[in-house]
Amino acid sequence: MSKLLIVGTVAFDAIETPFGKTDKILGGAGTFIGLSASFFNVDSAIVSVVGEDFPQEYLDLLQQKNINIEGIEVVKGGKTFFWSGRYHNDMNSRDTLATELNVLADFNPVVPQAYKDAEIVMLGNLHPLVQSSVLNQMTQKPKLVVLDTMNFWMDCALPELLDVMKRVDVITINDEEARQLSGEYSLVKAAAKIHTMGPKYVVIKKGEHGALLFHNKEVFFAPALPLEEVFDPTGAGDTFAGGFSGYIAQTGDTSFSNMKNAIIYGSNLASFCVEKFGTQRMEQLQKEEVLSRLQQFKSLTQFEIELE
Amino acid sequence: MSKLLIVGTVAFDAIETPFGKTDKILGGAGTFIGLSASFFNVDSAIVSVVGEDFPQEYLDLLQQKNINIEGIEVVKGGKTFFWSGRYHNDMNSRDTLATELNVLADFNPVVPQAYKDAEIVMLGNLHPLVQSSVLNQMTQKPKLVVLDTMNFWMDCALPELLDVMKRVDVITINDEEARQLSGEYSLVKAAAKIHTMGPKYVVIKKGEHGALLFHNKEVFFAPALPLEEVFDPTGAGDTFAGGFSGYIAQTGDTSFSNMKNAIIYGSNLASFCVEKFGTQRMEQLQKEEVLSRLQQFKSLTQFEIELE
Repeated sequence: MSKLLIVGTVAFDAIETPFGKTDKILGGAGTFIGLSASFFNVDSAIVSVVGEDFPQEYLDLLQQKNINIEGIEVVKGGKTFFWSGRYHNDMNSRDTLATELNVLADFNPVVPQAYKDAEIVMLGNLHPLVQSSVLNQMTQKPKLVVLDTMNFWMDCALPELLDVMKRVDVITINDEEARQLSGEYSLVKAAAKIHTMGPKYVVIKKGEHGALLFHNKEVFFAPALPLEEVFDPTGAGDTFAGGFSGYIAQTGDTSFSNMKNAIIYGSNLASFCVEKFGTQRMEQLQKEEVLSRLQQFKSLTQFEIELE
Repeated sequence: MSKLLIVGTVAFDAIETPFGKTDKILGGAGTFIGLSASFFNVDSAIVSVVGEDFPQEYLDLLQQKNINIEGIEVVKGGKTFFWSGRYHNDMNSRDTLATELNVLADFNPVVPQAYKDAEIVMLGNLHPLVQSSVLNQMTQKPKLVVLDTMNFWMDCALPELLDVMKRVDVITINDEEARQLSGEYSLVKAAAKIHTMGPKYVVIKKGEHGALLFHNKEVFFAPALPLEEVFDPTGAGDTFAGGFSGYIAQTGDTSFSNMKNAIIYGSNLASFCVEKFGTQRMEQLQKEEVLSRLQQFKSLTQFEIELE
């Protein structure tokens, strides 16, 4: 069983969609990554920070999913990171209503001793200096480092982002971010340029249009499952990253052909995440459901053409 | 060898893209469908109308591709349908600069006697009354009728469109049109509603994001091939439809599993169409290139997951 080290926010979200709205509920990239990866047979740990206002039941939930939470610092008297957003009718765009960094503003990640030799490291979307700090603490070169990031860091911390990118194997970003980072409109050209910045594997997430995996001249595509209804897209990208890194950690296989399977699992798990508000669906998810949906992914994409 | 009857415009296009512009060149839905279907072993005919200004060399080109042009009426003293458009930098949106209907305004399609028993009928994007008129002339119920249409007819001729839809097996439309026609945002729900309007098979084209094939509860997805550069998207949707209907005509197999192959071939051929201006690439296309690209489609989508 491989060790999977996850760094990412553990937070409160308040979400409005055309289907309803929530009060402050459990959210954060680290949470979604951890819950998603917990579907696999891995020894995972989350490095994060929360305030004293963070409910013990949320920490218990993560532990029940066999996630080590020793690296989640609880700041006495501090308040937990809070994000609030409203999705538009098309569910593809959203307005941020509030971002309160709180304890995240001074987050200094500390990797637990037992995970400094983790084989797989999943750097969730955070300041690139925090991501670098986690890599600095590793006592052994990980087998695979996966980095997730977003346009905000390209705008505000590009040099630091470019630094940490040189140290990772896989980057996951969305299509618009890939275009911004590379200056290329064509995703094929964008991926080629991002390769030269460090990551040998580039995963471009296209939301409801699926995800592309590039490695040199090779490319693989995982569709998103066509759904009757997307209830709440929050955390779908993180759930995708958790499925990807969790599957790699379980199999211990970092070949391109195994990464194909990993992004299919990432898409599979993300298709559940959006079915309910926040982490609700991921908390209840059963292994049988994921395997049954895997069959749907096969029917959706696999074909047999006889060549003359 | 099955007969494939195609109705669609044969026209002049003038195109501007960020890569350059053309004078009046060969275009039209019927042209692109015919050229694409000619890749397969089929006996095809185009029903259309052109003016006296239409160059004989264009008609010769279609004949050289083994397309019967008996049904292309040449109107003495008439002028050929002309469309001109300018693509934006993202290649996904365009402005129409000119639409001159000319001889198309009074187009009365006449199906050649030898094709009134065609097994496969491909109704290209035209006024729904023209599409119905073609079906009225068939002396034998076709094995499969495929209809392509667009938002313009939903706005201006919805009752006539709904009438012809009741008589077809497959409809191909883009995602926005599927939403407009059904009033449903979710493409899964949109397809279910469109099923109730007649077509047992619904193909939703998403441009660079691929195409979905729906049949009752079954769904299949064909990606678009990620390309370094899209040079000119004109005719890509028609080329897709030509590949789809041409493959069905060649194989004579209208099962769902064979339709999967048909939309893979449609995507395959469309990926060539966009590589050069107008019909240029399709005119030169060799069988070996298409088969080699089929291998790329397999690498792009096929995966092997061992279940525990």
